[in-house]
Amino acid sequence: MGCKNCCNACLQCLFGYETNVMLVINNKGVGALFRLIQFLIIAYVAVYVCWIQRAYQDTDSVISSVSTKVKGNILTNSPIEGVHVWDVPEYVIPPQGENTFFVLTNVILTPGQRQSKCPETPSEVTKCESDSDCKEGYSDVHGNGVQTGHCVQYSDKIKTCEVQAWCPLENDANIPKPAVLSAAEDFTVLIKNNIQYPKFKFKKRNILPHINSTYLKSCMFNRKTDPDCPIFRLGDMVTEAGEDFSVMALKGGIIGIFIDWNCDLDFSERFCIPKYSFSRLDNKNPENNVAPGYNFRFAKYYKINESIDTRTLIKAFGIRFDVIVFGMAGKFNIVPTIVNLGATLAFLSLTAAICDWVMLTCMKDRDNYAKHKFIHLNQNGDNMPLSSMEASSYGTP
Amino acid sequence: MGCKNCCNACLQCLFGYETNVMLVINNKGVGALFRLIQFLIIAYVAVYVCWIQRAYQDTDSVISSVSTKVKGNILTNSPIEGVHVWDVPEYVIPPQGENTFFVLTNVILTPGQRQSKCPETPSEVTKCESDSDCKEGYSDVHGNGVQTGHCVQYSDKIKTCEVQAWCPLENDANIPKPAVLSAAEDFTVLIKNNIQYPKFKFKKRNILPHINSTYLKSCMFNRKTDPDCPIFRLGDMVTEAGEDFSVMALKGGIIGIFIDWNCDLDFSERFCIPKYSFSRLDNKNPENNVAPGYNFRFAKYYKINESIDTRTLIKAFGIRFDVIVFGMAGKFNIVPTIVNLGATLAFLSLTAAICDWVMLTCMKDRDNYAKHKFIHLNQNGDNMPLSSMEASSYGTP
Amino acid sequence: MGCKNCCNACLQCLFGYETNVMLVINNKGVGALFRLIQFLIIAYVAVYVCWIQRAYQDTDSVISSVSTKVKGNILTNSPIEGVHVWDVPEYVIPPQGENTFFVLTNVILTPGQRQSKCPETPSEVTKCESDSDCKEGYSDVHGNGVQTGHCVQYSDKIKTCEVQAWCPLENDANIPKPAVLSAAEDFTVLIKNNIQYPKFKFKKRNILPHINSTYLKSCMFNRKTDPDCPIFRLGDMVTEAGEDFSVMALKGGIIGIFIDWNCDLDFSERFCIPKYSFSRLDNKNPENNVAPGYNFRFAKYYKINESIDTRTLIKAFGIRFDVIVFGMAGKFNIVPTIVNLGATLAFLSLTAAICDWVMLTCMKDRDNYAKHKFIHLNQNGDNMPLSSMEASSYGTP
Repeated sequence: MGCKNCCNACLQCLFGYETNVMLVINNKGVGALFRLIQFLIIAYVAVYVCWIQRAYQDTDSVISSVSTKVKGNILTNSPIEGVHVWDVPEYVIPPQGENTFFVLTNVILTPGQRQSKCPETPSEVTKCESDSDCKEGYSDVHGNGVQTGHCVQYSDKIKTCEVQAWCPLENDANIPKPAVLSAAEDFTVLIKNNIQYPKFKFKKRNILPHINSTYLKSCMFNRKTDPDCPIFRLGDMVTEAGEDFSVMALKGGIIGIFIDWNCDLDFSERFCIPKYSFSRLDNKNPENNVAPGYNFRFAKYYKINESIDTRTLIKAFGIRFDVIVFGMAGKFNIVPTIVNLGATLAFLSLTAAICDWVMLTCMKDRDNYAKHKFIHLNQNGDNMPLSSMEASSYGTP
Repeated sequence: MGCKNCCNACLQCLFGYETNVMLVINNKGVGALFRLIQFLIIAYVAVYVCWIQRAYQDTDSVISSVSTKVKGNILTNSPIEGVHVWDVPEYVIPPQGENTFFVLTNVILTPGQRQSKCPETPSEVTKCESDSDCKEGYSDVHGNGVQTGHCVQYSDKIKTCEVQAWCPLENDANIPKPAVLSAAEDFTVLIKNNIQYPKFKFKKRNILPHINSTYLKSCMFNRKTDPDCPIFRLGDMVTEAGEDFSVMALKGGIIGIFIDWNCDLDFSERFCIPKYSFSRLDNKNPENNVAPGYNFRFAKYYKINESIDTRTLIKAFGIRFDVIVFGMAGKFNIVPTIVNLGATLAFLSLTAAICDWVMLTCMKDRDNYAKHKFIHLNQNGDNMPLSSMEASSYGTP
Repeated sequence: MGCKNCCNACLQCLFGYETNVMLVINNKGVGALFRLIQFLIIAYVAVYVCWIQRAYQDTDSVISSVSTKVKGNILTNSPIEGVHVWDVPEYVIPPQGENTFFVLTNVILTPGQRQSKCPETPSEVTKCESDSDCKEGYSDVHGNGVQTGHCVQYSDKIKTCEVQAWCPLENDANIPKPAVLSAAEDFTVLIKNNIQYPKFKFKKRNILPHINSTYLKSCMFNRKTDPDCPIFRLGDMVTEAGEDFSVMALKGGIIGIFIDWNCDLDFSERFCIPKYSFSRLDNKNPENNVAPGYNFRFAKYYKINESIDTRTLIKAFGIRFDVIVFGMAGKFNIVPTIVNLGATLAFLSLTAAICDWVMLTCMKDRDNYAKHKFIHLNQNGDNMPLSSMEASSYGTP
């Protein structure tokens, strides 16, 4: 009998089905509350978790490659330089179009600089009366060179400390106004952007499949009429960012070109299209700022003869365009689905706890309910007399 | 007695253990179904969630720093330039090796340009019969300069609008074929990549600890024989990307060098090694495209004398290599573990609901089961007569 | 009666409230265990999940734009070049301050190079005895040009293969020591960093609102006294990274400037401030390395006359600073909250399973408990005699 008994027990263990014994209470109030909470939780899952947050999806971040190409020419006619046509190799710096490109809009040229000595530009720190005010070898962080220790005539009235530097020094006190290349707002830029979501083996580019070469040769991005054209007019981008090109051209700035590739890959690939937006990234507010705008200096070096180097220093003001590609792709995946549904199911069990609590504390029949819901067993294994239990209403679910 | 009673109740509340009363049904069918569903859920958790998706791990995205160094020399012998050796400072642009580097493969040189007037290159738009066809100050986006308003002789037969520009204009109608630097496929590039996962304070680089300097001086990446060597032959990378170097060299293009640092940090650090892959990022298809390939223009500026600037315009075709580092590290963390296991446990409770439903609707003994599973209580607190209950089978779990 | 009955059943189905029948066992041991496990799980959720891991938050990754501006001048006095002042356009390469900038610290100049023939620098590979040791057209990866096939005198004692190259060749055997621009440690850099968390429509920059322009003109970052100043002394950053500037200046290297924007957006915006840290990214260890340090070559091109190009080759050693912006913002969101709380609730159900198991296997009263907990029903629908059931203790929850 032992073995047979044992086998029997095992089978029972494996195939004996256990189910909770339920107390069904025919109370419309609690019943309605119970259904209401259940409905709310299920509605929340259906609408918010699934529909709005798409929590059933696995996600991946975008990987992107950008190339850009600016087009346009400008003719300027300045007293110093004469008639000059600026073309792409001159005003796009660096010339290679990557995800950040800079378009020159204003410029201060200082031609003919060479290593020599000259008076520093006047400021609080550099003005002097005699050599004793200057310190040989001292280099001010905001200065243009290294002091020689001499105090020399800057102009008829002003004496400043002499510096060893690339002389003559640049005079950037007066920024050309209007900007030298303010017509740059008519330039266009072609932005090519290839993205991929490696987790989903998904690749796409911002030149959409339905666009043909003929259209690309003549189109111009317009949010309403040409939202898919990857060619942008600089002035339009600055305007969309809420700025005035002619003002921004004076001192420069940074414009972000945001390409948003958020995609729901459960839908067809053709719904996964880039959304462009533009905003100014630097702070134009002169308060709480230092060096507003965007500029940098570079130089073109020349040799007059074997031994003498000369250079043209260029202080370049302009607009740096940062192409910032971001996005998340989502695709159905069983793990987040299970996690989200499971967690919600667990919440459904809270419903029962709440209703039990309501039933056992607020209902006038609570003692009767408790009597049927709880079977008391004291340490002796006997059912406790109910009278002593009535204080112990509801504990934990 | 009040206080004693109260204390008693409190203790009971705290230490009285509540457990569900279970109905054990000795039905092999439902029992087997119950165990099967339980087994499936547990198997899913073990295999898919834990093993494949590693959902018990916390994750972090890679932070990366890349430096690159190209090596190689090429000798060209063109009628215009004569014998010329190209070395790294000439063909790598910009010269500083960052995560994106460009290797020149083809080039159109236009030496001796200076600011002056010359006839525009002929096209639909620029051809003219008389001055009235040209518009002073007009600058075509695809043109090379700003029109002066004159119609001048371009060649014996063709007249085009005159432009103020850097003259003579570049003639890029004929791209050198084969590419000037087609031998660039033998160049090599050393890629140094340092990564970190800040959340896990994990740092590593692509030069693995077991690699010594001697090996590094002579090795070359090969997927089979040298998968850890960080030195790559350009031609090999292009071939792995499925392209023909000599064809790609003509008009240029963009190759992505993907370094995948996906790591399971629960294992030893030495299993965390980079995986390299290569693919072409731009679109070589001439349909649905504009400006295929990859090129840009830059110039070298010279001074003939104090006042006259001249430049050599270079239209550079070549291959841009984008080193794209991506990856996720995972490490055991209690939060996602609890979340995933908890959610699965919640799913186990679904099992009971399904089996209850089967038991109470499909089994022939269903009335008997229902009678034992459900204890009915009507609003008067009395047990309802079972006869009126038999229609109400199974409600909610 | 049929319809009334049916309606009745439906209503019962909808509003009949079902609740588990519970067995309350007055056993202090199991009760205490039950409460303890419950307490531990709730404590874990409260402290770890909510407080430390903030698992109730939705997260977003930072999007960033960086601009940098270096300031400072250095005077050098070398026998070749004479007195020379280095300013920003000369030593910052490329001149435009993006998120990666390079500061020249050491330099090997090779002026007057032009396309011609000269003996290769001596090495194992390039030394020769006669022309037969050299191979016309061969270009060694580590060499400087393309061999002509001749073996020529390099010095009195050494003969090397002749190469077509930019001659004279650079001699980089002796790196200037101390570094030419070792004083660069006093340079300062202003880092402007604008970030945004697009999911939360949150924007901020590293120049905090309470900082005014006057302070910005004179401040210098100091972890203790000026932690919010965005102007950094190069030497300080290198020191914080645990390196010696004068040593690093010799051969160059890469320093990471990490800006950590981890923010809890449930708190006020003003607590969301950047944390700066610095560390060396390249490997300075000469073992297990190739080309330690950081250097690259570039050239300045000159024209002696219409036909002859000459260039000054510059081997630039220096420190590349990579500004690496990272961070995650978290904000309360109902989905992760529900998921985490729900999953924890599901774990609470485990508690009951554990306690049941303890109660039904370890307690001496276990048979009595089992008798009350389990109601057995055999396939005939009758209650099974308890005697045959006692072996079957506890199955599954």
